[in-house]
Amino acid sequence: MTSMAARIEALEAGTCTLEAPVQPAFSQQHGFAHAAASFALGDVACGYAALSMLDEDQEVLTSEMKIHLLAPAKGTHLIARAEVIRPGRRLMITRADVFARAQDGSESHVATLLGTIVPVPRG
Amino acid sequence: MTSMAARIEALEAGTCTLEAPVQPAFSQQHGFAHAAASFALGDVACGYAALSMLDEDQEVLTSEMKIHLLAPAKGTHLIARAEVIRPGRRLMITRADVFARAQDGSESHVATLLGTIVPVPRG
Amino acid sequence: MTSMAARIEALEAGTCTLEAPVQPAFSQQHGFAHAAASFALGDVACGYAALSMLDEDQEVLTSEMKIHLLAPAKGTHLIARAEVIRPGRRLMITRADVFARAQDGSESHVATLLGTIVPVPRG
Amino acid sequence: MTSMAARIEALEAGTCTLEAPVQPAFSQQHGFAHAAASFALGDVACGYAALSMLDEDQEVLTSEMKIHLLAPAKGTHLIARAEVIRPGRRLMITRADVFARAQDGSESHVATLLGTIVPVPRG
Repeated sequence: MTSMAARIEALEAGTCTLEAPVQPAFSQQHGFAHAAASFALGDVACGYAALSMLDEDQEVLTSEMKIHLLAPAKGTHLIARAEVIRPGRRLMITRADVFARAQDGSESHVATLLGTIVPVPRG
Repeated sequence: MTSMAARIEALEAGTCTLEAPVQPAFSQQHGFAHAAASFALGDVACGYAALSMLDEDQEVLTSEMKIHLLAPAKGTHLIARAEVIRPGRRLMITRADVFARAQDGSESHVATLLGTIVPVPRG
Repeated sequence: MTSMAARIEALEAGTCTLEAPVQPAFSQQHGFAHAAASFALGDVACGYAALSMLDEDQEVLTSEMKIHLLAPAKGTHLIARAEVIRPGRRLMITRADVFARAQDGSESHVATLLGTIVPVPRG
Repeated sequence: MTSMAARIEALEAGTCTLEAPVQPAFSQQHGFAHAAASFALGDVACGYAALSMLDEDQEVLTSEMKIHLLAPAKGTHLIARAEVIRPGRRLMITRADVFARAQDGSESHVATLLGTIVPVPRG
């Protein structure tokens, strides 16, 4: 979160929206950096969406996550919107969509993630 | 690659090994940072493994990638070993295993990735 | 389709709904058969959703598909609702949700799929 | 297993090999049936590999599974070789490779699977 300068835009029971500026370092390469940044933001959003449904003495780990890169991330910000599609005591199935927002406010769908978050006792 | 201080340890037709120091920022959080760093290193290793089989006027994009986080990344370095399991003109199926290496040189298996890399004309 | 006695309930540009009776052989085992039947129906629905956006001289192959099994498939019918989330000339990214419908018409969400369909010339 | 006429060729702690004849119904369509048959055989092999490491009062469910279809399944038999790559009390990470065997005994790699198996108390 810190290294991406991400911030929480919205957080409710089972959903989370994160936003982060597109790093200059990232905007210069269209491939690997897009994948890494979209993965990181989408994965964290899934984690927070899961965390929002848990007790305070629990935290979360990603067990597995799949990402599809749908389009180049052209814009000034990345936005990840995540939701828990199946809450469970042992496993929480989550998905997230990542959008790039341009200067004029328009958004394009750049990635989608689907994966498994595991609740664990806070360490 | 630059922001992770990663370097190529080995690169042959269809395989690639990358190595990167574990960032202090990463070592303090066991969850999200591990996922992001293992994904980034494994994904780039898959990309290079694919690139090693292509003509010089081509580059690669990740279409989709799945990662399983298997264990906490305890150690000083992350090592990603990738291979192309099916080369194709339109799609290249790749996998990578990510290991954490400790001070004493021992390695633990921390993540495995499986995904699709797409060759595209160099832009 | 034939061996599952599946039928097309709806088919428009980019979406498809399939329905199949739950096989007695399947209903007796809650695990493997549920996975196989939900995968088969969801995968075919994704394929048809993709096919609905292509020219008549093209057919489709599944390149990769991920399925999450969310709940036991209790009911008389399985229903798969698929959509193309990114149409492309070379790759089509699709997802499907599979529901079990009970005697009283109520539906439960039993599986979700996300994967890559590839258009190929009709053989 | 029954409907595929599959049989266990080998089963040790953490690994399993299954074999099934290619169904005539399957051999006539190269796409959907290949995906469904390879998924079913690979998924069951992963389940047995996991089961081989558990106590007798436990059974297994597939939580999620990803399959890549690598080549058409030309041959008389499908063979799935599965292994547990990370055993866990709550989650078991497994992978399988599926091969088609021709009349002359030669094998081709037709699919690879990677997914999560969950141990549950025998019902």
